[in-house]
Amino acid sequence: MSVLVVGSVALDSVETPFGKADEVLGGSATYFSASASHQTKVQLVGVVGADYPVDKLQALAERGVDLSGLEHAEGESFRWRGRYRHDLNSAETLETRLGVFSHFRPKIPAAFKSAEFVFLGNIDPRLQLEVLKQVDKPRLVACDTMNFWIESRRDDLIELLKHVDLITLNDGEARQLTERANLVQAARWILERGPKTVVIKKGEHGAFMFTSSSVFFAPAYPLESVFDPTGAGDSFAGGFIGYLARTGDLSDASLRRAVIHGSAMGSFVVEGFSITRLLEINRADIARRVAEFHELVAFDKSLDS
Amino acid sequence: MSVLVVGSVALDSVETPFGKADEVLGGSATYFSASASHQTKVQLVGVVGADYPVDKLQALAERGVDLSGLEHAEGESFRWRGRYRHDLNSAETLETRLGVFSHFRPKIPAAFKSAEFVFLGNIDPRLQLEVLKQVDKPRLVACDTMNFWIESRRDDLIELLKHVDLITLNDGEARQLTERANLVQAARWILERGPKTVVIKKGEHGAFMFTSSSVFFAPAYPLESVFDPTGAGDSFAGGFIGYLARTGDLSDASLRRAVIHGSAMGSFVVEGFSITRLLEINRADIARRVAEFHELVAFDKSLDS
Repeated sequence: MSVLVVGSVALDSVETPFGKADEVLGGSATYFSASASHQTKVQLVGVVGADYPVDKLQALAERGVDLSGLEHAEGESFRWRGRYRHDLNSAETLETRLGVFSHFRPKIPAAFKSAEFVFLGNIDPRLQLEVLKQVDKPRLVACDTMNFWIESRRDDLIELLKHVDLITLNDGEARQLTERANLVQAARWILERGPKTVVIKKGEHGAFMFTSSSVFFAPAYPLESVFDPTGAGDSFAGGFIGYLARTGDLSDASLRRAVIHGSAMGSFVVEGFSITRLLEINRADIARRVAEFHELVAFDKSLDS
Repeated sequence: MSVLVVGSVALDSVETPFGKADEVLGGSATYFSASASHQTKVQLVGVVGADYPVDKLQALAERGVDLSGLEHAEGESFRWRGRYRHDLNSAETLETRLGVFSHFRPKIPAAFKSAEFVFLGNIDPRLQLEVLKQVDKPRLVACDTMNFWIESRRDDLIELLKHVDLITLNDGEARQLTERANLVQAARWILERGPKTVVIKKGEHGAFMFTSSSVFFAPAYPLESVFDPTGAGDSFAGGFIGYLARTGDLSDASLRRAVIHGSAMGSFVVEGFSITRLLEINRADIARRVAEFHELVAFDKSLDS
């Protein structure tokens, strides 16, 4: 089954201790699509300005990303400029120019309305709700969010929670949204408000997945060098939701494997700027890394305990 | 096989968002012993002042901790007073009074010299080296350390590394010691200087174990409420080394199970003040939590990857 993603398509300029990149492909929908395309067909809805180097998106189209929902608007594309210091843990935003993204009103093409898997990238929760009014009856709706919406659109976000099956957010956002310092309590708070599954991403410290009956934890892959952390969260989501869409299996066992696929994609994307690494790897690379995740946490509980 | 621990025996006064405790049992050797006593016999070497409530240590003696190496010195016992704020991640030290601990020169009783498993708790690396001169030929020597010794006794600490098989330290200490921000690189730096096994503890974010040929990760148990984080690292070490001493098995598979036992003990101790919880639980509780750790990270890698 294919997956519909709605989110930003941006131009990023990034500086890390290891180098810099100017005006490279960025945005939540871009990272998500490049990642999910290793699993299944992707339908992208977003907006770019007249200045966007759309030819560079051809690499996504070749990987099965349907770009017919990408709106071409008058004006400048969404640009983000940021810098990572030595610890690579948090981006310092130097400049954000929303451009055409500030007036984005997602329009879901007729051919996309029957999407069975939907990922609402990090945009205004009012727009995320509007998207849901335009789609038929997805099997799974997942969303992401960020601190800005938690502060400025709290009520809308809580309304959105009633309509999504799954939410991904990072630990800081989970604490901010729920006003709970403890992540187990934070997850329960969210589970009580709609989603059946809550994924709390902790960056280099891995990710938790909570349901009402189970807790799963996936470490981050212990990379010897992280090149550029930009897009790790959206690449995680792409691997995660892409895996579920490909298998069509929403069991707990499948959700766990999906988290590992998400973690694998997050570990690949940070090995280079932009979506470079996601375009280089193949299914065998992913399978190998999934096996490495298995080895990383494997222990025999039956002996001598 | 029994395990010899050399470290501090203190009186802690702790304040957390959930309550406070005055002059309760603390110190690295105390936590280590209480934890390891669930696995095997423990021989403790430390020092207390004339004012120490030694009767309270009876609970340890009843659990198989041999206190004949506990020196009773003239003067005041080691006291630590600290506070944890809402996030419980780092202790704020309000007062440290070393007392008799400042003149501590560990003397290993004749009956302890043949110890096969030795844990050098966090004391001056010069003293840790002196301990090693007093013991015969242990199968495994493990040590802990802290930022204070990394700053003030760097050369001695690097000398010590040549003589230990295993080191446990937290992520901040690993970065400080090795001047590497990346933990994989930090672990390799340490492995090149002596220890065959490096355990990097990340508190609520779990623990990595590195050897030259393998990386293992254990998450922290997702507790809904952490009551008092004091002693988590030493309780981890007690479960870890205690497990190895009990089984006598130093294979990679056994080291992995040992890390999980350490993580389990760390998760119990933070449920109460001082060593309270470690005295309440039994082997069945530990086995249950080890099984929960297994479930927490379990996924089937063979399907659909």
